[in-house]
Amino acid sequence: MTDTAPAYTAPDATTRAAMLDTARFDAAGLIAAIAQQHDTGEVLMLAWMNREALDETLRTGRVCYYSRSRGGLWRKGETSGQVQRLVDARLDCDRDAVLLLVDQTGVACHTGRRSCFFNAMRPTGLVETSAPLIAADTLYGRG
Amino acid sequence: MTDTAPAYTAPDATTRAAMLDTARFDAAGLIAAIAQQHDTGEVLMLAWMNREALDETLRTGRVCYYSRSRGGLWRKGETSGQVQRLVDARLDCDRDAVLLLVDQTGVACHTGRRSCFFNAMRPTGLVETSAPLIAADTLYGRG
Repeated sequence: MTDTAPAYTAPDATTRAAMLDTARFDAAGLIAAIAQQHDTGEVLMLAWMNREALDETLRTGRVCYYSRSRGGLWRKGETSGQVQRLVDARLDCDRDAVLLLVDQTGVACHTGRRSCFFNAMRPTGLVETSAPLIAADTLYGRG
Repeated sequence: MTDTAPAYTAPDATTRAAMLDTARFDAAGLIAAIAQQHDTGEVLMLAWMNREALDETLRTGRVCYYSRSRGGLWRKGETSGQVQRLVDARLDCDRDAVLLLVDQTGVACHTGRRSCFFNAMRPTGLVETSAPLIAADTLYGRG
C-alpha cells in the first residue's frame, strides 16, 4: 500500500446487498473482475468473483476473488503478501463485469511480474513485455 | 482514430496460428478480452472473443469480438462507427484472457459513454461516474 492511495469507505450491509442484487452473476455464480492500479492505470489481472467474494471485497476494502481451480474464496495476497487494497469498484453497463481500481502491493502476477498481461502477440510471435521483479519461489516462501 | 496512435503491424497467418494455439479458450470456445485506451490507460469495456474473432483482430488491426447474445462475430463499430484500432494484444500468464490496447474512436459503450464501467459501488449506493457523450439514438442512427 502506498501512502497516496485514497481512503476507502465501505458501504453498509444493506447498501452492499442492494448493489449486489443488481450485479449479473453467470450460470456458475461468477462475475469477471479486472484489477487496475488506480493511479498508473496499469491493468494488473483478470480474475473471477462470486457474490460472497465481491461482498467481502466491498466490506473489507481488501480484494478477495473466487478461485475456480480451488473452488473457494481467494484472498489476494494471503500467501504472498501481495495484497490489493480497493480504491473503487465499478460495474459495467450490463452489470456482468466489474472494474476494481486498486492499490497493488508488490506484484499482481504469480510469475513475479507486476501485471499478468505480458505475452504480447507480435509479428515475430509472442514477446514478453516484462521480466519478473520477484522470483516466484521468494513470492511463495519457497526460496 | 487519433493521429498519435502507433502503427500496427499484423503477424502473418502462420505466426497468428502458432500464437492462437497457445491461447486457452473456455468450454464455449471463448476468451475474455479487455479493451484499454492505449495512451490514457482508461479501461473501456470487457467482451468476449472466439478464435476467429481474435484472429481477425490480429489480421486486420481492427477489433472484432464474438457476441454471445447474437451468436456471431461482432465487428466493433460496424453499426455505430465507434471502431477500435488495435495497438497491441497481450495474453495473460495463463493465456485465458487478453488485454487489447486500442485507439477508440468516440465512445466504447452502447449507452454513449466513453467507458462501460460507470456504475461505482459507493457507500450511498450505485453512483454513475460519467454521463453519455452521445445519445444512444444518435449512435445507432435512430436520432
